[in-house]
Amino acid sequence: MISSLGKYENKNYFDHKAFLVPMTGIFITLEGIDGCGKSTASKELARVLGDKGHKVHHTLEPSESWLGQAVRRSYTEEISPFTEVFLFLADRATHTEEIKKKLADGQIVISDRYCDSSTAYQGASLEEPLAKQGIDSVDWITRMNATVIREPDITFLLDIDSETSLERLKVREELSKFEKHNYLEKVRANYLRIAETESRIKIIDAKQPAEEVLADILAILEESFKHQH
Amino acid sequence: MISSLGKYENKNYFDHKAFLVPMTGIFITLEGIDGCGKSTASKELARVLGDKGHKVHHTLEPSESWLGQAVRRSYTEEISPFTEVFLFLADRATHTEEIKKKLADGQIVISDRYCDSSTAYQGASLEEPLAKQGIDSVDWITRMNATVIREPDITFLLDIDSETSLERLKVREELSKFEKHNYLEKVRANYLRIAETESRIKIIDAKQPAEEVLADILAILEESFKHQH
Repeated sequence: MISSLGKYENKNYFDHKAFLVPMTGIFITLEGIDGCGKSTASKELARVLGDKGHKVHHTLEPSESWLGQAVRRSYTEEISPFTEVFLFLADRATHTEEIKKKLADGQIVISDRYCDSSTAYQGASLEEPLAKQGIDSVDWITRMNATVIREPDITFLLDIDSETSLERLKVREELSKFEKHNYLEKVRANYLRIAETESRIKIIDAKQPAEEVLADILAILEESFKHQH
Repeated sequence: MISSLGKYENKNYFDHKAFLVPMTGIFITLEGIDGCGKSTASKELARVLGDKGHKVHHTLEPSESWLGQAVRRSYTEEISPFTEVFLFLADRATHTEEIKKKLADGQIVISDRYCDSSTAYQGASLEEPLAKQGIDSVDWITRMNATVIREPDITFLLDIDSETSLERLKVREELSKFEKHNYLEKVRANYLRIAETESRIKIIDAKQPAEEVLADILAILEESFKHQH
């Protein structure tokens, strides 16, 4: 939770005059390495947009279904990295159908992680095994994703370095195998690589306090979806 | 179970003189539409080869692990066909590691279903959704499989028509959604299509009695792996 909502609370971000949600809804995703603050930011974003009168659906990956549970189980086991990526894709295929329904209902869908997480994380864990087959892991996962995703309208990449990530994660009890230094550096590099080619991805400085992160997100959203007069 | 082992029982199929198992083991898969008799044939094949003194590992897909259970659960739910195919691939990636270990130990591994099942079955269920994206489903799954399989040394496709399949399945209590007529015809066509390009796939007439099916398999195996003098 953000202790104080700060400067953006009293602004007119996302009132209905300034902000137009298309009939097809808006699909927003938040991405970044562990500890970047995207869970907090995505929940706060959902709350603020909801308070402004928008219909908002907050969701996350791995999903809360049995498919998401299978993904979480794979974290804790010594298992092929290919098994892991295919479990994510299995979960995503069904998650996408749920997201499409909400969008068809004109809602704003906010997902805490989505397609780019696979590209960044499994792109890192599959880099070596796929390179042996002469395949670029980031390209490969991008193609995999393409078959099962609804392209996000806008993605916020909450960028932090791996030192900050690990410092923030210290306070948590369980550290999964994902949360290791070199690995996180590779993941971050993959995120930044896809941000270069995907104009929907907006990079946010996530070393800032949570209030500033959210204010940046709201400002970019307003600019991107403002009513065209 | 086959009631009588018939004509091949007293032959010297697979005695150590006639039959050479390479140091790298032999990986045999059995494929075919539901009701083709491949479960019976694969178990009998394992028993006969074991009786002849070979180290044999019998396995199947979906596997018996929690990943295989996830695949089975997907049959019973209304779920995206993409979720289904990715669950199969997730299960296969880990199954392949287990198979490779047995092969490295010089064993004969016999798998009741493997990579070609996805190509044939999910190739059918994904035909329409992938065609919309301009993708050929059989090619697509073949490429997916390539990243996670150990190529079988030999594959027996137990070929029957869908009428025979459905007639045989009548006696079973539960009919999954896979076991429908038109679907099975598509699956069979996919199997026959991949058999055209994959020389490892040997087509067996599975309308024959089980004893004849097994005898055909044993004869082809002996021919394929006989000791070169």
